Amino acid sequence: MGETPFSLEFKVRDYECDMQGIVNNANYQHYMEHARHEYLHHIGLDFAKLTEEGIILVVKRIEIDYHFPLRSGDVFFVDCVAERVSPLRFAFVQNIFRLSDRKPIISARVTGTSINRNGRPFLPEIIDKAFGPVKQQ
Amino acid sequence: MGETPFSLEFKVRDYECDMQGIVNNANYQHYMEHARHEYLHHIGLDFAKLTEEGIILVVKRIEIDYHFPLRSGDVFFVDCVAERVSPLRFAFVQNIFRLSDRKPIISARVTGTSINRNGRPFLPEIIDKAFGPVKQQ
Amino acid sequence: MGETPFSLEFKVRDYECDMQGIVNNANYQHYMEHARHEYLHHIGLDFAKLTEEGIILVVKRIEIDYHFPLRSGDVFFVDCVAERVSPLRFAFVQNIFRLSDRKPIISARVTGTSINRNGRPFLPEIIDKAFGPVKQQ
Amino acid sequence: MGETPFSLEFKVRDYECDMQGIVNNANYQHYMEHARHEYLHHIGLDFAKLTEEGIILVVKRIEIDYHFPLRSGDVFFVDCVAERVSPLRFAFVQNIFRLSDRKPIISARVTGTSINRNGRPFLPEIIDKAFGPVKQQ
Repeated sequence: MGETPFSLEFKVRDYECDMQGIVNNANYQHYMEHARHEYLHHIGLDFAKLTEEGIILVVKRIEIDYHFPLRSGDVFFVDCVAERVSPLRFAFVQNIFRLSDRKPIISARVTGTSINRNGRPFLPEIIDKAFGPVKQQ
Repeated sequence: MGETPFSLEFKVRDYECDMQGIVNNANYQHYMEHARHEYLHHIGLDFAKLTEEGIILVVKRIEIDYHFPLRSGDVFFVDCVAERVSPLRFAFVQNIFRLSDRKPIISARVTGTSINRNGRPFLPEIIDKAFGPVKQQ
Repeated sequence: MGETPFSLEFKVRDYECDMQGIVNNANYQHYMEHARHEYLHHIGLDFAKLTEEGIILVVKRIEIDYHFPLRSGDVFFVDCVAERVSPLRFAFVQNIFRLSDRKPIISARVTGTSINRNGRPFLPEIIDKAFGPVKQQ
Repeated sequence: MGETPFSLEFKVRDYECDMQGIVNNANYQHYMEHARHEYLHHIGLDFAKLTEEGIILVVKRIEIDYHFPLRSGDVFFVDCVAERVSPLRFAFVQNIFRLSDRKPIISARVTGTSINRNGRPFLPEIIDKAFGPVKQQ
């Protein structure tokens, strides 16, 4: 009964592949970050404007399981589901699938928070509302 | 009477921006490389397969004029026109324009050649045909 | 009574910082990968040569806790301790500390394995020996 | 009778190599940028602080000749000589050599200027002094 998660399509760019001929591990973080920022736009938040206003969204923890590598020419999509994990923390569950056959590429969980320019917790109403109440277990 | 050049649309990803809040200079080379490789696909050449077969396409010279920076959220396109400059060299004339107002972002000229795995000039028929005869001045 | 772990010093390069003025999250994976490959050299393994010989070392899982961000000008070190977690898997425990005050920047655990060019498990003796026996709990 | 130019040593990191097994073209811009910023520190200018103060150093043109590729494990140095080319423009002549045998890797010329946050020319005294008078031809 779940909703369709937010999802963004990409194509591997050859400079993202390393000497093994597969996408370098760190680039999956880039793909996921871009999908998260596009998801934020989708729910009315602009990462760059938030940054300018001193609302600094930061990643506190990332867990990635690498199932299968992407290669030159692969088209894939990155999905993104957000949840509130505590008053000060939110998380994004993100998966990457190859488009042609829905082959799972990676599964990840990215936990974040919001701070001010001095590094202090700062989760103003605009962020609080965007991520909703803490999920009841 | 010119044809419409090959062109590819992109959107700035926030990780491509640096502390100045604009796309870092080196990333324009990434955009242009991806547009060139997509152009090659368009004319029937696959960069990754060529590499596996020992046909190594390499850049010998790049000139880039930076007119105006791209920022978070900008959508832009990169065009690509190829020409043969000598028996062993070909060039790509590439421009980037912001989509919303066609503002020129960069103009570039990228000269390349083809070598084998030992670094020797190696321009087999498949490459020779793709870039056509040397342009008469 | 522990030995000093393998450790490698780096300095932040400005292109590694994003619009928040701090090192972009994905770059910590780059730092850690470079430290792992230098660690491999240190114990007699060359990642590039292994790749050429069809011994493909891949990351299966990564967990990173981000404690504090690095900024322009920061000098830091990345340490690396390897352990065998199962017949086919090994792990690297990696931490990053700012050099000036030993402030913890990130803590990470990277689990990997070794496959052949067809993606099948392939852990030849050279790899088996390098990571030693499975650690008794 | 020239002075020894400012020079910075690097080692190739494997993630900088692409599927051809050589350093990807765009990474040479990264190396050169880092060497320029370290050169600026050397003459008393801090790129990050200048950026915070609204003195935005930008590249206007780059020309790179690629002579020979760097590979995994290569140690190299990037040198940097600055010159004033006009009241508003300065240039950096930069070369990369492999350390082991001084083999030339790339030669480049990078022309820059200084603007304010609104993109207007802004070359305050601190920058003017750093680059000295326009070179007489």
